Amino acid sequence: MKVSALIGERFKHAPSDCIVESQALMVRGGYIKQVGSGIYSLYTPAQRIMNKIENIIRQEMDAVDGQEVLFPVVMPASLWRESGRYDSIGSEMARFKDRGGNDLVLGMTHEEAAVQLVRDAAQSYAKYPFMIYQIQTKFRDEPRARGGLIRVREFRMKDAYSFHTSQEDLEEYYSRVYAAYERIFRRVGLKNVVVVKSDSGMMGGSVSHEFMLLTDIGEDTLVICSDCDYRSNMEAADCVTVNEDRPSAPLAELATPGCKTIEELSRLTGRKARTFCKAVVYRYNDDDGHIVVFLRGDLEVNETKLRNLLGRDVHPAADIDEELLTPGFIGPVGIGDKVTVVYDRSLCGARDLICGANREGYHLTGFEPERDLPGAEYASVAKAVKDGICPVCGRHSLKIKKGVEIGNIFQLGTKYSEPMGLTYLDADGREKVPVMGCYGIGIGRLCACICQESRDEFGPVWPISVAPWQVEVCALRSEESGVRQAAEALVAELERRGIEVLYDDRQVSAGFMFSDADLLGVPVRAVVSPKNLAAGEVEIATRDKSVKKNVPSEAAVGEILAAVEYCRSQISE
Amino acid sequence: MKVSALIGERFKHAPSDCIVESQALMVRGGYIKQVGSGIYSLYTPAQRIMNKIENIIRQEMDAVDGQEVLFPVVMPASLWRESGRYDSIGSEMARFKDRGGNDLVLGMTHEEAAVQLVRDAAQSYAKYPFMIYQIQTKFRDEPRARGGLIRVREFRMKDAYSFHTSQEDLEEYYSRVYAAYERIFRRVGLKNVVVVKSDSGMMGGSVSHEFMLLTDIGEDTLVICSDCDYRSNMEAADCVTVNEDRPSAPLAELATPGCKTIEELSRLTGRKARTFCKAVVYRYNDDDGHIVVFLRGDLEVNETKLRNLLGRDVHPAADIDEELLTPGFIGPVGIGDKVTVVYDRSLCGARDLICGANREGYHLTGFEPERDLPGAEYASVAKAVKDGICPVCGRHSLKIKKGVEIGNIFQLGTKYSEPMGLTYLDADGREKVPVMGCYGIGIGRLCACICQESRDEFGPVWPISVAPWQVEVCALRSEESGVRQAAEALVAELERRGIEVLYDDRQVSAGFMFSDADLLGVPVRAVVSPKNLAAGEVEIATRDKSVKKNVPSEAAVGEILAAVEYCRSQISE
Repeated sequence: MKVSALIGERFKHAPSDCIVESQALMVRGGYIKQVGSGIYSLYTPAQRIMNKIENIIRQEMDAVDGQEVLFPVVMPASLWRESGRYDSIGSEMARFKDRGGNDLVLGMTHEEAAVQLVRDAAQSYAKYPFMIYQIQTKFRDEPRARGGLIRVREFRMKDAYSFHTSQEDLEEYYSRVYAAYERIFRRVGLKNVVVVKSDSGMMGGSVSHEFMLLTDIGEDTLVICSDCDYRSNMEAADCVTVNEDRPSAPLAELATPGCKTIEELSRLTGRKARTFCKAVVYRYNDDDGHIVVFLRGDLEVNETKLRNLLGRDVHPAADIDEELLTPGFIGPVGIGDKVTVVYDRSLCGARDLICGANREGYHLTGFEPERDLPGAEYASVAKAVKDGICPVCGRHSLKIKKGVEIGNIFQLGTKYSEPMGLTYLDADGREKVPVMGCYGIGIGRLCACICQESRDEFGPVWPISVAPWQVEVCALRSEESGVRQAAEALVAELERRGIEVLYDDRQVSAGFMFSDADLLGVPVRAVVSPKNLAAGEVEIATRDKSVKKNVPSEAAVGEILAAVEYCRSQISE
Repeated sequence: MKVSALIGERFKHAPSDCIVESQALMVRGGYIKQVGSGIYSLYTPAQRIMNKIENIIRQEMDAVDGQEVLFPVVMPASLWRESGRYDSIGSEMARFKDRGGNDLVLGMTHEEAAVQLVRDAAQSYAKYPFMIYQIQTKFRDEPRARGGLIRVREFRMKDAYSFHTSQEDLEEYYSRVYAAYERIFRRVGLKNVVVVKSDSGMMGGSVSHEFMLLTDIGEDTLVICSDCDYRSNMEAADCVTVNEDRPSAPLAELATPGCKTIEELSRLTGRKARTFCKAVVYRYNDDDGHIVVFLRGDLEVNETKLRNLLGRDVHPAADIDEELLTPGFIGPVGIGDKVTVVYDRSLCGARDLICGANREGYHLTGFEPERDLPGAEYASVAKAVKDGICPVCGRHSLKIKKGVEIGNIFQLGTKYSEPMGLTYLDADGREKVPVMGCYGIGIGRLCACICQESRDEFGPVWPISVAPWQVEVCALRSEESGVRQAAEALVAELERRGIEVLYDDRQVSAGFMFSDADLLGVPVRAVVSPKNLAAGEVEIATRDKSVKKNVPSEAAVGEILAAVEYCRSQISE
């Protein structure tokens, strides 16, 4: 492929709306072009990277006995009604009517289609376990599309679905896919990937894990123990607390005029935030009812855990019905039964806390939850904190990091098989319902994450396993005697050896050519120029700038192949 | 791959709604499953075939300097408004609103996206010509989904777009793609493909061709000269006629009570259909206005040509406004100016025809269009007929055949580049508008067409270039001593040699196993059985039933490889 023919321009500067570095580089390098909010077209370099990523994933899915299939992008609503998700999923699912007035949806995931495909195709236990997967375009009407291919509305995804006759079998297969995912992320060249426990969200099921690229641009917050193997998405992380050993004290009113926040109260009383019981108010999305969460004053509410606990969607209360509650002075004692009340586990066992008195201008001291709220139940709805207690090893060893989710795996149980009537006949002739797992990787986001991790100030440094080309041959001042011929002979010989070569044959300055080459990020570069040619040499450099040397022309092919091997050795299989 | 693990059941009988043989076989063989009207999921055998077809197409597109890109499935309506097609395309385009209320469409073709992608990426004439292509899912809300993958609503398609600085350059490139398409269809194993001139329809542009598989199940009607190279889709075919040399006669009224059809009039008058001038009434889709087409009594209206002539959509009139016209007695003389009138070229030069008198119960004799309708213009709106006159060689040599369109190529001109503001700077520094070509192949339909052409009563006979596997090893009574070991050794050795093997390891009867094998259509079959084993032999057969022999076990691998080569030799490259 000649750079002179390659469609897609390189730019010196990124548009001002690029908020992350990989997005800026992929726009500047002629990889992607926005078509609409969260919708992109891919130029050839990006498409070549995507094809390579897809092939690596395909190999690893085949290696865990996956069978490649294809589900449709457009599905009848009736299929999604079978699982109940047509109603339970909100506006992130695109819906439309066909010419006949039938409801259709765009697939954002394909559990329903997977069950439909195997429903009459695996009727005996002898077929189990099995896994089917596809690589297909999906659409999710994401309100916060951002960062180029990091968070989009339309994306290509590998999604896989496994079917099992027992939970044990699912768990065994789940760990095979877990290991396959680790191989995939290593093979595409990523280094800083961690696996965290995750919240299953709309997918349902109990156990799930996310594969996260650690990066400051991540929108996910991760809780990682520096002393043991505990890793969790903040959404799923438990918050373990130990309370100050304070003596019991009687409940007593304290005048706190105008003091509505923990900060103000702390200043007034000289007590630390963790000796307060604070109230945070939410409202149900559907009926607008109030929820009051009580938790220790130094903690924040984990809204995902709150939603899961309530089984309904909620949002922070922008305004509060003052007939029901006294904002700034809300407390658990005598709060009444017109609101839903949730007590966080951090309150359990605490003594002598300060809480609201449900009366304007007053708080209570001496609040002792187990004494003052007999029979109250405690749930874990507080966010884990930096240097907090690890729920596994018990040390104060939690770190908080940012990450981008690049893969997820779920144990779904019978969430889809049961309502959709998927059954098989067991060895004893009885009809049973299989359990399922599902496993996803977004291809475009993975591409963007590789760029995000592997780059320098000049452009992406593509790992050779996914690089659009392996070698770029630059012909400098190709109009001068012999340069074009030497460069073309080199290109031809490399291609004969099975190397994918990008050939820059343009009559442009060295600076221009090299800055384009940096943006295209090809791992190995060979420069043919009048000066090198006169010295009987070719310059060879790696894109990561670790190698740059002149070699005799006759040794060029061998040295380039050695550089390619060196780049391959940078990637652990 | 083991058949015991392969997901997808084979069935003895096809469901009754299967109307074409390839659909029945692909349902019976566990290739496809319907998800909704015109929407299918693919099981692994079909997905493997699709991947192979896509790779052949990719190779041929790369060989004509194509650059693979990817456009989105979902596009903003604003992009389609730029070309004017958001309004000009009807309900076959799926439309919906996103959560923000913005209009989106599902891509049914990607000219707009192609222009958008290159709009700022090819600003100099030096980039031209170039071609970009993608392989992507499309949705077209087809009212007549039928025949399995033959005519669907969702389909994968290779679509390519070329850009040129002159019509001559477009034409030259167009013939390169024409030749690439011929290679593609040969390489996937099709034999009965013809190329016909076609109507450009909603794509616009002037010259276009369709690649057609000749088959009785085709919905397209083709006009083919048996004496020269003339081939045309009926929609685009010219109807050339020669009129009877009748003497002039004066116009005179003839009482024809109750005779409204050419058949009835012919019986009444004893004259042949071709000596009548018949009237066919259409109505405009938009304003319901009447159109009367006059043409020779033995001909039919070519509705595509009529629509193109009028530049508006029309439909045959189900009812006629009798204030305006007298059904059964409509004639060209004195028809008035309240209706649109079209005269077919077949009337030109004719004399002494019988036509309606625009009066209940009467016709006119002696009608002579050029005398009685001074200044009338004639257009070609009649259908070509069997044994009609070839517009190229002039002989009465036209044959009418049925075909399925498997590929199409269009010279688009500036239909998209002009309104969408795509320009480049020419060598002389002037801004110019490029001309475009576009080139499509539906992958799923191609798969179904291969099955339709290459099959027998037992199942598909997949050409080895696209077959899901190249060799199937059948282990009969594998529980008996040595069979399983021998079969597995054979499978392992074939796989080591790079052969894709399907291995039937099930303990089922020979009849059951072989009928499944026929449905899976793998080109070469090797059977290991207790009887063969005892004789020191393996049975080798080809799916096309042309080879079936026992060979010594030690020669089995070599013989199987030879059979694979034989199957490859059946396909011309």
